[in-house]
Amino acid sequence: MSNTELIEEANRKVIDIMLKGEPVLDDIRPAIEVIPKMSKTTILHSGPPILWKDMCKAQQNAIVGGIIYEQLAESPSKAYKIIKRDEVIFSPCHQYSTVGGMTGVITASMPVYVVKNATFGNTAYSNHHEGWPVKALHWGNNDDEVITHLRWLEEILTPVLRSAIKQMKGLKVKKIIAKALQMNDECHSRCTAGTALFVEEIIPYLVMSDIDRKLIRDSLEFLIRSDIFFLHIIMAAIKSVVEPAKGIEYSTIVTTQARNGVEFGIKVSALGDRWFTGPSGQVHGLYLPGYSSKDAGLDIGDSSITEVLGLGGFSIAASPVMAIMKGGTMESAANAMKQMYKITVSKNHQYTIPYLNFEGAPLGIDIRKVVETGLTPIIDTAIAHKNGGLIGSGFARAPLECFEKALKTFKKKYKQ
Amino acid sequence: MSNTELIEEANRKVIDIMLKGEPVLDDIRPAIEVIPKMSKTTILHSGPPILWKDMCKAQQNAIVGGIIYEQLAESPSKAYKIIKRDEVIFSPCHQYSTVGGMTGVITASMPVYVVKNATFGNTAYSNHHEGWPVKALHWGNNDDEVITHLRWLEEILTPVLRSAIKQMKGLKVKKIIAKALQMNDECHSRCTAGTALFVEEIIPYLVMSDIDRKLIRDSLEFLIRSDIFFLHIIMAAIKSVVEPAKGIEYSTIVTTQARNGVEFGIKVSALGDRWFTGPSGQVHGLYLPGYSSKDAGLDIGDSSITEVLGLGGFSIAASPVMAIMKGGTMESAANAMKQMYKITVSKNHQYTIPYLNFEGAPLGIDIRKVVETGLTPIIDTAIAHKNGGLIGSGFARAPLECFEKALKTFKKKYKQ
Repeated sequence: MSNTELIEEANRKVIDIMLKGEPVLDDIRPAIEVIPKMSKTTILHSGPPILWKDMCKAQQNAIVGGIIYEQLAESPSKAYKIIKRDEVIFSPCHQYSTVGGMTGVITASMPVYVVKNATFGNTAYSNHHEGWPVKALHWGNNDDEVITHLRWLEEILTPVLRSAIKQMKGLKVKKIIAKALQMNDECHSRCTAGTALFVEEIIPYLVMSDIDRKLIRDSLEFLIRSDIFFLHIIMAAIKSVVEPAKGIEYSTIVTTQARNGVEFGIKVSALGDRWFTGPSGQVHGLYLPGYSSKDAGLDIGDSSITEVLGLGGFSIAASPVMAIMKGGTMESAANAMKQMYKITVSKNHQYTIPYLNFEGAPLGIDIRKVVETGLTPIIDTAIAHKNGGLIGSGFARAPLECFEKALKTFKKKYKQ
Repeated sequence: MSNTELIEEANRKVIDIMLKGEPVLDDIRPAIEVIPKMSKTTILHSGPPILWKDMCKAQQNAIVGGIIYEQLAESPSKAYKIIKRDEVIFSPCHQYSTVGGMTGVITASMPVYVVKNATFGNTAYSNHHEGWPVKALHWGNNDDEVITHLRWLEEILTPVLRSAIKQMKGLKVKKIIAKALQMNDECHSRCTAGTALFVEEIIPYLVMSDIDRKLIRDSLEFLIRSDIFFLHIIMAAIKSVVEPAKGIEYSTIVTTQARNGVEFGIKVSALGDRWFTGPSGQVHGLYLPGYSSKDAGLDIGDSSITEVLGLGGFSIAASPVMAIMKGGTMESAANAMKQMYKITVSKNHQYTIPYLNFEGAPLGIDIRKVVETGLTPIIDTAIAHKNGGLIGSGFARAPLECFEKALKTFKKKYKQ
C-alpha cells in the first residue's frame, strides 16, 4: 500500500472509532477519588502545558481560586506564596483524561463527571459548568461569591444529580446531543435544548429520590436558569469518545484541540500524546455591554474538543440563534460549515444539521487538508476578560502554525 | 377615508390586538365547571357546525367514546340510541370559546385548560392532548383503552399539573412558544421543545407539591414521552388571543380556521361569528407503515388556529424536522413560507423564524389577498384514518371557496 492508502485506511479507522464510541455518564465523584494520579495538590488547567509565569491572568486567577477552594490557602496572597514554593502541581486537564471549560481549573475535591465510553471501556472526566451566576472560576473570577457557589455545586447540586444518575444506571449522552442539534443547539456555546433534555431525563428519578425536596427544587431551578449547563457533560463525553482514536499509526486526524489563553494546542492520532501549538487567537463576536475587544483575553478552554467531533463551530448552522447573535447570518453560517467540510474527511451521520437538509456534521479534521487549504478550524466559544470574567461570545480560528508543525512531524515520522 | 383605507386601518387594529394578547394558563378544571353554557349532555366537536349524520366516521367514533366516558351510555350501541333520541347536544368547540384537537370531542367532565388573555380579560379553553398512546379519542378511537387513558388524564395527570399551575400563579404561554420556535418546533405538528420547556417550568413546583411522588413521576414520564403534549395549551392560548380580534368593522383578517373532517370553516374579523366553509382537503405527507392516502380521512381539527397566528404551516421553516420528515426540503419550506407572506398583512415579530434570519412569522391572513393570489393557507397537521386512528402527518391547504364566500359577503356588507 502507498503511504496515501495507509493514511486513508488509518483515517477510516479513526472515524469508525469516533462514531462507535458510546459515552455514558456514570457517576459524579470528587476528582481525587476517581481521576488516576490526581492528588490533593494537583491543579488541572485547560489547554496545552504551560508554566505558571506564562499563563494568562484569567487562568492564574482561577488557579488562585482553586487553591482557596481546596483550603490550601486562605487568601490570594497566601495562594501566591504556595505557588512560588512549588507546593502545587500544574497539569493540563487533558493529561488526566479530563477536560475543563475556559480556564479549566479542576482541583482535588471538586466533583467531576465520570463518563465511560461503553464501547472501548475508557473513562473521561469534567467538572460542573458553574452555570449563570455572572462570576465563575472558569471565567477567571475567584472571589468569595465564586468559592461559595463552588461549594454549593459540591454540597447541594452534586448529591442531587448523583442520585438521579445512579438510579438511572448511567445516562447515554449521544442521543441527547443528537436531539439537541435538532433543537437549535450547536452543543458548544448553546446547550439550551441539551440542558432541557437532560432535566427531562433526570426528573422522574429525582422525584422518587429520598433527598430533601427543597434541595431538589433549588437544584432544578439552578439547572433551568443555567441553560449552558449540559456543555461540560458533552465535553467529557467527547473526550471519552476521542481518546481511543489516539495513536492509530498513519492517521492524520486531529484528536484534541485545546487552548490555555496563550497557546492553541492540537494532538494528531498517529502522533499520540504530543502537543503541537501555535498562538491562541482573538475571539470575534458579541460583547456584553461596557466591554470591547481591547478587554478580551485570547481563545481559551478545552471546550474546543466539541469541534473535534463536528459540534460547536463545525455545526454552527444548527444554531441560528448563535450564528446570528454573534453577528452572522444563516448564509454565513452555512458558508463557515462549507469551509469545515473542506478540512474534514467524513460526515457525522449521528449528528445532523437540520438547516443543511440534515447533512452530517463535518467530522475528522485532517491536518493535511488544513495545511493544504489554509482553512483552520472555527471554534464557537465564549470570551473571557483578560483579567477574568465573562464578557462575550464569538468565533475564533485555530492557528495554522500548530497544523503545520504537526504535518512536518508526521512527514518526518513516516518518511514522506 | 376610502374603503381601502378603512380596511387597512381596521387590519392594523386587528394585528395590534393579536400581538398585544397575553395568554396565561390559569387553571385546569372540568369543562362543565368553567365553560359557560356547558351542560352534562353537551358534546363539543372540532370545526364548523355539522349534523351528526354528516360527520365523518372518526368524529362520530370520538363522540361515541365521549358519551361512554361521560357514563351517559355503557356501550357504543347504547350511545347511538342516545344520539338518535337527541339526548345530547352537539356544538362546535369554537362556539364555547374552546378549541379541540382533530375530532375535537370535549365533554362535561373532561378537564380543560383555562387560558386567560391578561390584556383583554377573555378566557379560552382546550382539553389535554392525549399524548402518545397509539389510540386516542381525538384520533377517533373509542375503545376501553382510550376511555381508561382519559380517566388517567382526569384523575392522575390533572391534579398533578394543576398543583404546579396554581402554585406558579399562572403560566405565561407566549414566551414558551417564542423559545420553542427557536428550538425546531413549528408549534403545531412539532411541540417537542415546547413540551420540554413546559416541563422545565412546572417541575420546581411539582417537586414541592404535596402530591404523592409516584403520581408525579408517572405524570412526568407521560409528559416526557408525549412530546406533542404542549400543543393543546398553545391552541387554547391562541384562541384566547384571537378572540378579541373578532368583530372589528372593515377588517378582512381571518380570526379562525377550523375543520371537522368534512368542511373547512373560517371566520373573518369584520364578519363576526359567521362561518364561511368549503370542503376539507386531503392531507399530503408521510404515512405510518401499512397506511396510504386511500385510508385517510380529510383535514380535521381546530388546531389550524395555530396558523392564524403564524405558527404551524406558516412557520414551517422553523422546523426542519417536520419540513423534511413530511417529504420536503428546507428550500421547499422557505418557499411555502414565501407564499404565506403573500397572503398576510404583517409579520409576527414575537414569533421569529431562525432559518429565515429571524424574520417574523407571516401574520394576519387577509381574505382579499387569498382570493387575489389563489394561494390558500398551508396547514401542518396530523392525518387521521377515515374510521379513526392516527396514520400519518402532512400538509393540507385550506379550500379557496371559503375565502371567496367570505369576500363576497364582506363586499356586500360594505357595499364595495
